[in-house]
Amino acid sequence: MEIGIVGATGYGGVELFRLLNGHPEVKTIKLYSSTQSGEFFQEIYSHVNNEEYVLQELAPEQMKEQLDIIFLATPAGVSSELTPQLTGGKGKVIDLSGDLRLKDREAYTNWYKNEAATEEIIEQSVYGLPEWNKEEIQSAEIIANPGCYPTATLIGLGPVLNKQLADPSRIIIDAKSGVSGAGKKASPVTHFANTQENFRIYKVNQHQHIPEIEQQLLRWDADAEPVTFSTHLVPMTRGIMSTIYVDLKASHSLDELVDLYQQTYQDEPFVRVRKAGEFPCTRDVYASNYCDIGLALDERTGRLTIVAVIDNLMKGAASQAVQNMNLVLGLNETTGLTHISLYP
Amino acid sequence: MEIGIVGATGYGGVELFRLLNGHPEVKTIKLYSSTQSGEFFQEIYSHVNNEEYVLQELAPEQMKEQLDIIFLATPAGVSSELTPQLTGGKGKVIDLSGDLRLKDREAYTNWYKNEAATEEIIEQSVYGLPEWNKEEIQSAEIIANPGCYPTATLIGLGPVLNKQLADPSRIIIDAKSGVSGAGKKASPVTHFANTQENFRIYKVNQHQHIPEIEQQLLRWDADAEPVTFSTHLVPMTRGIMSTIYVDLKASHSLDELVDLYQQTYQDEPFVRVRKAGEFPCTRDVYASNYCDIGLALDERTGRLTIVAVIDNLMKGAASQAVQNMNLVLGLNETTGLTHISLYP
Amino acid sequence: MEIGIVGATGYGGVELFRLLNGHPEVKTIKLYSSTQSGEFFQEIYSHVNNEEYVLQELAPEQMKEQLDIIFLATPAGVSSELTPQLTGGKGKVIDLSGDLRLKDREAYTNWYKNEAATEEIIEQSVYGLPEWNKEEIQSAEIIANPGCYPTATLIGLGPVLNKQLADPSRIIIDAKSGVSGAGKKASPVTHFANTQENFRIYKVNQHQHIPEIEQQLLRWDADAEPVTFSTHLVPMTRGIMSTIYVDLKASHSLDELVDLYQQTYQDEPFVRVRKAGEFPCTRDVYASNYCDIGLALDERTGRLTIVAVIDNLMKGAASQAVQNMNLVLGLNETTGLTHISLYP
Amino acid sequence: MEIGIVGATGYGGVELFRLLNGHPEVKTIKLYSSTQSGEFFQEIYSHVNNEEYVLQELAPEQMKEQLDIIFLATPAGVSSELTPQLTGGKGKVIDLSGDLRLKDREAYTNWYKNEAATEEIIEQSVYGLPEWNKEEIQSAEIIANPGCYPTATLIGLGPVLNKQLADPSRIIIDAKSGVSGAGKKASPVTHFANTQENFRIYKVNQHQHIPEIEQQLLRWDADAEPVTFSTHLVPMTRGIMSTIYVDLKASHSLDELVDLYQQTYQDEPFVRVRKAGEFPCTRDVYASNYCDIGLALDERTGRLTIVAVIDNLMKGAASQAVQNMNLVLGLNETTGLTHISLYP
Repeated sequence: MEIGIVGATGYGGVELFRLLNGHPEVKTIKLYSSTQSGEFFQEIYSHVNNEEYVLQELAPEQMKEQLDIIFLATPAGVSSELTPQLTGGKGKVIDLSGDLRLKDREAYTNWYKNEAATEEIIEQSVYGLPEWNKEEIQSAEIIANPGCYPTATLIGLGPVLNKQLADPSRIIIDAKSGVSGAGKKASPVTHFANTQENFRIYKVNQHQHIPEIEQQLLRWDADAEPVTFSTHLVPMTRGIMSTIYVDLKASHSLDELVDLYQQTYQDEPFVRVRKAGEFPCTRDVYASNYCDIGLALDERTGRLTIVAVIDNLMKGAASQAVQNMNLVLGLNETTGLTHISLYP
Repeated sequence: MEIGIVGATGYGGVELFRLLNGHPEVKTIKLYSSTQSGEFFQEIYSHVNNEEYVLQELAPEQMKEQLDIIFLATPAGVSSELTPQLTGGKGKVIDLSGDLRLKDREAYTNWYKNEAATEEIIEQSVYGLPEWNKEEIQSAEIIANPGCYPTATLIGLGPVLNKQLADPSRIIIDAKSGVSGAGKKASPVTHFANTQENFRIYKVNQHQHIPEIEQQLLRWDADAEPVTFSTHLVPMTRGIMSTIYVDLKASHSLDELVDLYQQTYQDEPFVRVRKAGEFPCTRDVYASNYCDIGLALDERTGRLTIVAVIDNLMKGAASQAVQNMNLVLGLNETTGLTHISLYP
Repeated sequence: MEIGIVGATGYGGVELFRLLNGHPEVKTIKLYSSTQSGEFFQEIYSHVNNEEYVLQELAPEQMKEQLDIIFLATPAGVSSELTPQLTGGKGKVIDLSGDLRLKDREAYTNWYKNEAATEEIIEQSVYGLPEWNKEEIQSAEIIANPGCYPTATLIGLGPVLNKQLADPSRIIIDAKSGVSGAGKKASPVTHFANTQENFRIYKVNQHQHIPEIEQQLLRWDADAEPVTFSTHLVPMTRGIMSTIYVDLKASHSLDELVDLYQQTYQDEPFVRVRKAGEFPCTRDVYASNYCDIGLALDERTGRLTIVAVIDNLMKGAASQAVQNMNLVLGLNETTGLTHISLYP
Repeated sequence: MEIGIVGATGYGGVELFRLLNGHPEVKTIKLYSSTQSGEFFQEIYSHVNNEEYVLQELAPEQMKEQLDIIFLATPAGVSSELTPQLTGGKGKVIDLSGDLRLKDREAYTNWYKNEAATEEIIEQSVYGLPEWNKEEIQSAEIIANPGCYPTATLIGLGPVLNKQLADPSRIIIDAKSGVSGAGKKASPVTHFANTQENFRIYKVNQHQHIPEIEQQLLRWDADAEPVTFSTHLVPMTRGIMSTIYVDLKASHSLDELVDLYQQTYQDEPFVRVRKAGEFPCTRDVYASNYCDIGLALDERTGRLTIVAVIDNLMKGAASQAVQNMNLVLGLNETTGLTHISLYP
């Protein structure tokens, strides 16, 4: 296979590069950058140390005929413009940005403060959450790879929402992420001295991932209402934990709920549900494509606490994109993704 | 003043030692340890480097006559036994453990798995949260210094609970703490390689600070019901953030709520309420006695998010204990506690 | 191939397990533990989440006939006893401890404070530094996998020592390591709050890796004298940097020296020499088998500074052991080890 | 006293602000900034939370008559221009930048790539290392506060160099610093994801602190030759360790050397020499004005290893500047600086 990565110099891009280098079905990787074309990739990422890779200028006409998969690891606002130029040929497009995820174009504009992609492109785009949308992904032309927070949150909420077990007006999501989620750009908030030994809350109820979560909740439960959603910055590089609080409509035992989760995901190679009373930590999924889930039922309040963890650069971005690539190319879903988590 | 610290070798003890050394009204500090008496303090804490301080064996009879204040920085289960031996003399007792906080002795036994202190001692003990209990503290013989999580959580919840503005059946507290909260003892959970680049949830709905929070909520609102309470471990040494979600009974603007908080705490030197739209991070209160608060009102759900941060070893333990000491000794509440937060 | 890991519960063991799981020629992995046999591996390492792996009790007679490779990831003092029981059959032994590295048994006893392995075993053991000892490794029965500090230091010093370009009486090595080098055991020095925001020096001129370094230096230059060697603890989990200072006997340009290094290692797939003026950081080799090297020549003093970095758990332990396994089994040296460094 | 801080928005400035706020002899603090005048200080540093402090525009004529001390916490190249405008009045100038430290103006230009201050200003400036220059400081008009690396290195080297015990041609300094040394500006090297879990070497033999070290060495030993000097970036915010290697001219016991150090510094309140065999870590001096020293003598090589640690923002910048202020104002040297190190 010949694969292209547009926006290869960001964290999503360099992680895709690492994964595709270890993917047994990938023959060629081409790296594209609009701002740094002509540079050696190793000049930007000293850990690569391979003179083979030079950043190329985009050549959409040629790319769409030559490449099997084109990954867009570009900032919001870019994919909506690029995608029309890259589709209609041989290659499928997998977009890691938020541009193609929302079916409601007005919502996109409200939350992202950008112009939305065309209706045609949005209609063609399939939401790439394999655990809940596998069939559509397998036949897609364009895949909108999910956001990092939505991935953890939706895999966590799916089983109870899909069965309409939870009060859909009382969903509270308290999410925490490592710093790499803020990207490669140096800024006060990513400055080491501002982040080390610090814990920060940001974008309270204002994160652009909120409509993406709500769109999927409504597919599961037409009564789903707006969620409360807070995001926090953890002094670490990788990892997301989403701690989710839901009110159950009826009484259930913890064992029943753990059973429900285990059965829901029994055929999903990358979701692991813990035994009752056990919870995953972000390290459990470090540098892997796993999403691990733990459940707690508070008998005093009848409230269910759902804990879901992912590596934000992996299942929250690059490795989920490769999982989608595998699906759309008809490969085994786990090809090139069977890494055990890195520990310690 | 002559001050004694029992359990000086733990993190609470060494932080008390630091603060009392810089306190202008403290003349003498005596350090006590049941397990390491006879040792130089600097052999245990190399940053102290002062041969003056030797750990002494407990001598309750002598201590209670000679010392003005006796701080107990001992583990749960010890203070309940020691306090009766140390009261009735000249010295006041300020206990940093959880032994004397709960008025319901059965609740203590259930949550702490220890035998409760005697009813007499419990009755004499005053809950040392100065922002809400100042008068009682000033005339106390025994002060139960609040837990770290309850301090942040209660200062955050006080204004809305006290005015009965919140639905008392729907309080969700998502708390996060640095590692020093787990104490000085080496253990797998405090091992650097298990904690660095990791985010962990623990004791979901089972933390012993829950009944302490609920006891105070009931003082404010007799209808208060059990809370949902999760604790997380952040890869940093100091700091607690409590993110609290409440459903308001009636509609209020964010400005009204910020006003309420600012008025409630306008005479409190150590509580700082942020402007609407601004949130504190834990670094804002690092190595200080402050509790900083920020509020967000989600117009889509009508739900209020309250963010309260403290330094768990300071306002969550040692400096709050010194604040209580100032009050009980009739000193200005801020004496020896006017440090600007350490930054960066 | 069928592979056994003895001491699978330590950091060396769990890293070997991860690497062997991704190794294309490995069919079966068996895990052994003298203290935790019978337990599921996933009970100890929650990131594994695979019920297939149960820790087994050692059965030397059976192991040596059935297994192709037996890795010993055991503490010092254990391998010297186990190795005689595991050799003489089909399996080769690769020992990750320091027990079999020193040819001088008295030196071993002096530095390790343990009894040395038998002369016979020591004679049979081959020092497993592939870049300098490949042929011997390929035909070895027993391989003594190098220590983490010696690996970085010797790959750094090899080119100048081997050509006798450096004053062998003036070698100063200032080494720094992440905390995982101290192993899995919880202790005050690995306690998060003691290590985070701290930088520590330890074992000044007393580290047991000193005689291992000096033994190899003497193979290159018979005039080599004792080295000055300091080790420091960096608040990070993985990574070693060895900063090495040597006085050159004659004048050379930096370009000549960089050339020498690049030529020396041109056929070594895991050593990367930087251009003049560039230096590697430990992140450049994170979670990889690389050793990266940078050089600086101070024209004011004529002194050469050599910087060598490795991942202490990889090239400093587990992945170098797999590299040795590949060599002794006649596989391509890079099989299962072609990971790009994890970044960020 | 009325004190001014020019460049108050940088890390040196905000740390001075914290210290002066707790200084018993300081009545008024005025903050100056050329780029952010008119802003509230708390808008820049949210931990301050005090509306009293507004950044002012520089008014040299007024400042030099009104202020007792003017601290310059400005970048290199600024103080050389400002100082002539601020001297000649009532106020003394204490400059935290490198502009006024080097007596050799050509060396300044070579190492700093800036134009040097005028000869007159340079002549007036006194090097503010109190442990070795106290008398001159007490009567100075202008004090050049030492650099962070030179402070640790010179306090470490002073006793042996001053007695000419060390071979002055063989001094090797391997220094390590926390990230705050790189200042407040966001940059790739201070980006959290580039620094966390990373250890980096930089400016090998090219750091601008080299001539400052050598200038002082020559005062102690006229035969001092250029030093080898490497700097490393530690993934922590505060702290410097300087590990120094010297060859002794004659044989000495470790006890003799420890004695020499203890006697040299016996009247210095901020230098603490450890017992033979003990070494300080950077945490021992965290947020304090101490410089702690440990010594190791390698009997195999006769080489002495000197370990000196400071907090780079305190003894390496702001608290040393306050120590100099105390001296020049005739106050007790320790006034406002008696903090015990923050631990943990």
